[in-house]
Amino acid sequence: MQVSVHKVPQRSPDDLSGVKALIRDQILDPTTLVAIMGKTEGNGCVNDFTRGFATQTLKLFLRDYLPDPDGIITIMSGGTEGVLSPHLTLFCRQDSDPQIPPRSALVLGTHHTRDFLPQEIGGLTMVETVAAGVQQAMAEAQLSPDQVHFVQVKCPLLTAARRQGSTQVKTQDGYGSMAVSRGASALGVGVAVGEFTLDQIREAEIGRPSLELYSSVASTSAGVELLNCEILVLGNSPHSTSDCVIAHQVMGHALDAEAIRGALQDTHHPDQIVNLFAKAEADPSGQILGRRHTMLEDSDISHTRMARAVVGAVAASVVGDPMIYVSGGSEHQGPPGGGPVAAIARLP
Amino acid sequence: MQVSVHKVPQRSPDDLSGVKALIRDQILDPTTLVAIMGKTEGNGCVNDFTRGFATQTLKLFLRDYLPDPDGIITIMSGGTEGVLSPHLTLFCRQDSDPQIPPRSALVLGTHHTRDFLPQEIGGLTMVETVAAGVQQAMAEAQLSPDQVHFVQVKCPLLTAARRQGSTQVKTQDGYGSMAVSRGASALGVGVAVGEFTLDQIREAEIGRPSLELYSSVASTSAGVELLNCEILVLGNSPHSTSDCVIAHQVMGHALDAEAIRGALQDTHHPDQIVNLFAKAEADPSGQILGRRHTMLEDSDISHTRMARAVVGAVAASVVGDPMIYVSGGSEHQGPPGGGPVAAIARLP
Amino acid sequence: MQVSVHKVPQRSPDDLSGVKALIRDQILDPTTLVAIMGKTEGNGCVNDFTRGFATQTLKLFLRDYLPDPDGIITIMSGGTEGVLSPHLTLFCRQDSDPQIPPRSALVLGTHHTRDFLPQEIGGLTMVETVAAGVQQAMAEAQLSPDQVHFVQVKCPLLTAARRQGSTQVKTQDGYGSMAVSRGASALGVGVAVGEFTLDQIREAEIGRPSLELYSSVASTSAGVELLNCEILVLGNSPHSTSDCVIAHQVMGHALDAEAIRGALQDTHHPDQIVNLFAKAEADPSGQILGRRHTMLEDSDISHTRMARAVVGAVAASVVGDPMIYVSGGSEHQGPPGGGPVAAIARLP
Amino acid sequence: MQVSVHKVPQRSPDDLSGVKALIRDQILDPTTLVAIMGKTEGNGCVNDFTRGFATQTLKLFLRDYLPDPDGIITIMSGGTEGVLSPHLTLFCRQDSDPQIPPRSALVLGTHHTRDFLPQEIGGLTMVETVAAGVQQAMAEAQLSPDQVHFVQVKCPLLTAARRQGSTQVKTQDGYGSMAVSRGASALGVGVAVGEFTLDQIREAEIGRPSLELYSSVASTSAGVELLNCEILVLGNSPHSTSDCVIAHQVMGHALDAEAIRGALQDTHHPDQIVNLFAKAEADPSGQILGRRHTMLEDSDISHTRMARAVVGAVAASVVGDPMIYVSGGSEHQGPPGGGPVAAIARLP
Repeated sequence: MQVSVHKVPQRSPDDLSGVKALIRDQILDPTTLVAIMGKTEGNGCVNDFTRGFATQTLKLFLRDYLPDPDGIITIMSGGTEGVLSPHLTLFCRQDSDPQIPPRSALVLGTHHTRDFLPQEIGGLTMVETVAAGVQQAMAEAQLSPDQVHFVQVKCPLLTAARRQGSTQVKTQDGYGSMAVSRGASALGVGVAVGEFTLDQIREAEIGRPSLELYSSVASTSAGVELLNCEILVLGNSPHSTSDCVIAHQVMGHALDAEAIRGALQDTHHPDQIVNLFAKAEADPSGQILGRRHTMLEDSDISHTRMARAVVGAVAASVVGDPMIYVSGGSEHQGPPGGGPVAAIARLP
Repeated sequence: MQVSVHKVPQRSPDDLSGVKALIRDQILDPTTLVAIMGKTEGNGCVNDFTRGFATQTLKLFLRDYLPDPDGIITIMSGGTEGVLSPHLTLFCRQDSDPQIPPRSALVLGTHHTRDFLPQEIGGLTMVETVAAGVQQAMAEAQLSPDQVHFVQVKCPLLTAARRQGSTQVKTQDGYGSMAVSRGASALGVGVAVGEFTLDQIREAEIGRPSLELYSSVASTSAGVELLNCEILVLGNSPHSTSDCVIAHQVMGHALDAEAIRGALQDTHHPDQIVNLFAKAEADPSGQILGRRHTMLEDSDISHTRMARAVVGAVAASVVGDPMIYVSGGSEHQGPPGGGPVAAIARLP
Repeated sequence: MQVSVHKVPQRSPDDLSGVKALIRDQILDPTTLVAIMGKTEGNGCVNDFTRGFATQTLKLFLRDYLPDPDGIITIMSGGTEGVLSPHLTLFCRQDSDPQIPPRSALVLGTHHTRDFLPQEIGGLTMVETVAAGVQQAMAEAQLSPDQVHFVQVKCPLLTAARRQGSTQVKTQDGYGSMAVSRGASALGVGVAVGEFTLDQIREAEIGRPSLELYSSVASTSAGVELLNCEILVLGNSPHSTSDCVIAHQVMGHALDAEAIRGALQDTHHPDQIVNLFAKAEADPSGQILGRRHTMLEDSDISHTRMARAVVGAVAASVVGDPMIYVSGGSEHQGPPGGGPVAAIARLP
Repeated sequence: MQVSVHKVPQRSPDDLSGVKALIRDQILDPTTLVAIMGKTEGNGCVNDFTRGFATQTLKLFLRDYLPDPDGIITIMSGGTEGVLSPHLTLFCRQDSDPQIPPRSALVLGTHHTRDFLPQEIGGLTMVETVAAGVQQAMAEAQLSPDQVHFVQVKCPLLTAARRQGSTQVKTQDGYGSMAVSRGASALGVGVAVGEFTLDQIREAEIGRPSLELYSSVASTSAGVELLNCEILVLGNSPHSTSDCVIAHQVMGHALDAEAIRGALQDTHHPDQIVNLFAKAEADPSGQILGRRHTMLEDSDISHTRMARAVVGAVAASVVGDPMIYVSGGSEHQGPPGGGPVAAIARLP
């Protein structure tokens, strides 16, 4: 398998000028596209329609190139607070050129789960379904659990309309439904890569801070624009002929610049970073490095938005580039207050 | 002169438990207090009453120790976005113990200007008045311009009520009045320390981004709770017997971790940092390191709040402490998008 | 008993110019003050310090007139969204002049409960304690349940600091703690005036929308500045010599102008309204008059803030005065989406 | 001419289920569509992409019915704060059936201006161009100035990207550019219908509160999704065979329920209202009905958002329907703090 990765800026959620330029210049072959991860400039919370707008725009455009644009994994994560810069990361996959000798480099697998019922969102059935989906994507990529470095899941949320008629939903709160949906998806990833087992998870604990039940490679993002989960698994395989490599570490807290530097170093090509992928949350203890923070008590700004601004700023200062992927809400993704961070670098 | 500096956390704008503990433990002698700089947890914009609440609480408390609490410089800067942690920095001053040999260390001077008329806020008269005040504070501290490392000014803003009846004000917009007030105050600092002269400044340019007209040592903060300017000048003097030292650099942009590290290093005691003082603003060009940022187009969150979150996160990750002083709105304080950063370290 | 009621505007949370003018003009005798209800201009949510700032300012001022300013009921409700105008309503009480013949007019009673433990906030113990307190206040005012028209309760909330060390709290969410605290307090009022009994209430239902368990006279407001509940009971008694009268109705929804007009009419002096007191919440069904609203899905603005703006606008357009008291979060105060509305009118 | 008007709810900016149902039931003939006015659920300010998302979705859908969907006037106004409910109003136009006798009823005309240069936005050239466009639309509808009841203009705004390279723009502030763009467009309407002349307008006054220079029939709305102005003129003509009629009044302030009732009454069919169209702004004096409001000093919520919530609530309580069109920012549309209000009613 040969995977190529391209990063293009967006001037707005419906700006495809960067994508079009890559196609025009024959750098990107749109028929080989398998996944797109975007950071769009909405609030990243319940009423963020920039995700859906970007998705609709992309799928409309790709109709000209692909028989089924819905077959592509399209994960839009809202929220470019602070220095973060809206952009798309495009993943293309094709068969390896047999002339090129394989080396340990990037491969990927994808999966779409079935749609979830409102009452399933945030529960054990969702964990199990996501876990099975991740394992299918790993099989597709021929990745063993220890070769997986990053698993991105886009998952659904509950609106008032979707809750209606269902007394069995996990929460009556739109924003709260994003948390349990992200949490269940992340636990699904952890189960799939063997970090813990399904029977260690109690449904009532899903979405609550936990020092034990977290995945070191999961990144999950909830959105109003889908009802199923879309999964993208990234890892390094010795059978790859890609020109990129991936590495990851786990941030212990929002200011853990060391972990970010570590992920860059672990690619062995820290000067050739294509993109960085990190998770952010306001430490649920109310403290960071022993100091009180006010994010959880600020009723004017969602703490997720502030958390993205914080991790985005620290990571951008380390990478030297604010056009990176930082996604908010890291329930069961890294330890409370921290989160996984992965870097993709270009090989020489 | 002997200056001592103490930093205490605040659980709320009216929390004095940290101050009371220092007094009780005889670490702080409240009768020697000359200045207090605080970060309070409001929005740091027009309707931030946490600054006034903290100020009222402090002055009420200090009545028991000081004949005139209003004689103290009390500069409350609102906004502890992201990881920033509410706190007070207390500056005490007393005559040097003749037994202690002087060395190059921290000294300070203070000044209260007269109240400004609404129409003076943001204009050349304000620049001139602040410049004269800074020079008086420098004289008090026996500091030459090149020995000055940080000048904090608290300045007034215009509310609808204050504007009423005045057609001569610089702006009809409450938030806009904070910008011109901060800008004029910063230019006053620059004039006082000789970075440029009064006649280089055109009134219409006050508050506008400028690559030439900026001070490398000014930090100005606007608030609804005063009508005059309060000035605190900090520098190193060979005549000092203080146990602290100060250094500064200028951040070229919001992610300039190098400048922060430089300021720490320049104290020669980067492991003994008492507090860091930095300015933040969303780069007015709309770009950071060549990438588009969305802070100026986000109509839900004031860009000043986001800018504080960004610089606060970068600086906290460098210092290893989120309890630092980062103030928003850096008009004429450092180059556009950047700002001065000063560090106070404890001497062995 | 003779009760007088005064309404004064505030230019800021620490503005007492209106109060001072009433005292100077001998309209208000500060030694007879028993309760103050204020609308302050904060966000009315967790980090609203305008309530505490106004309270501190008032108590400091009243030290000159009252032996124990803390004995006064001081209920500050944050949030003057939309047209609402910050103000104080001051209630004075003195013995009746035996020369004046009694008539059915305003009387009041007050009560301070004990401080609540973090784990009690929002639970049945709180309901019971508030109910007992309301009954004591009713007894003080010699009011039977059917003579009660309005019961205002100020109740505590949970911050991260207060939650710490307690795994027994009803919610880990600061804003959520305001909801259960208001809910339990309102249920306490309902129990006290006989709208339902304590054993009809299941602890798990406290704070959830209910078409049965609500009080038609309760108005409760949560704040960070207290740990107990402060209670003010208002009603009409035939033994009163007051120059004011009170009436109330229940709004069925946020746009129920008819109920507001009804409350004004029921005073028999709709042209002499001193103040109006209403509750507001975003209809938890997600609909108003059969139309979808977006308040519960807006992650940028708290729905409580919008609900106050809505009810404030409708009520102000009916009363012809935006300086009215509209408080957010009407859990168990009126039916879901609606709330009690009371009017105090001046008698000729 | 025969005009029909349909109102359909939207569950999200890309929800066309209501439109599709009307087409399926043969109530709406999509080939006769000439204009669509929508209220979408974004913030209504600079970074509101719900307008563009709704527009893209509609145009994509209409490709199946219309040769040139861009020929349709598509005016999306962001912001459904408070009780306002997202919806579309669809205007269809066809030749009159000669069998039906004409009566005074609704007619419409439309116009697209050319794209504006960044430096033209908010200036006299824009006023003039919009005036000419309105007059063309009036001619198309055969409406004399006194027969015009409502003129909706969608106009462009300036982003940082659009400002770049232009030192001649009227403002460097994204939100400020919306104000001058709306103001210039409204003045163009006023010129077109003869409320004042072009030479009465000084460019520097565009966007500033004025008691003289305002239109009683203009409603203008700025958005990032276009560079020209789109114009929709509505009025009553004796030559119409429509089943709707329009009337308007001018609100003197945000709480002017009388003007709203007047507009309903003036249709002579106040019980058959199809939709209401109103403008909202936070009174620039800082006062409403002699009371201070805090909208202009609230740095957490844009005053435009609050103004829409206020006028939306008052109007919805009068009409008995929250699914109405209230648009923010009424520069030169009605007197300062007020604005035009128009009602369309179904004829028997």
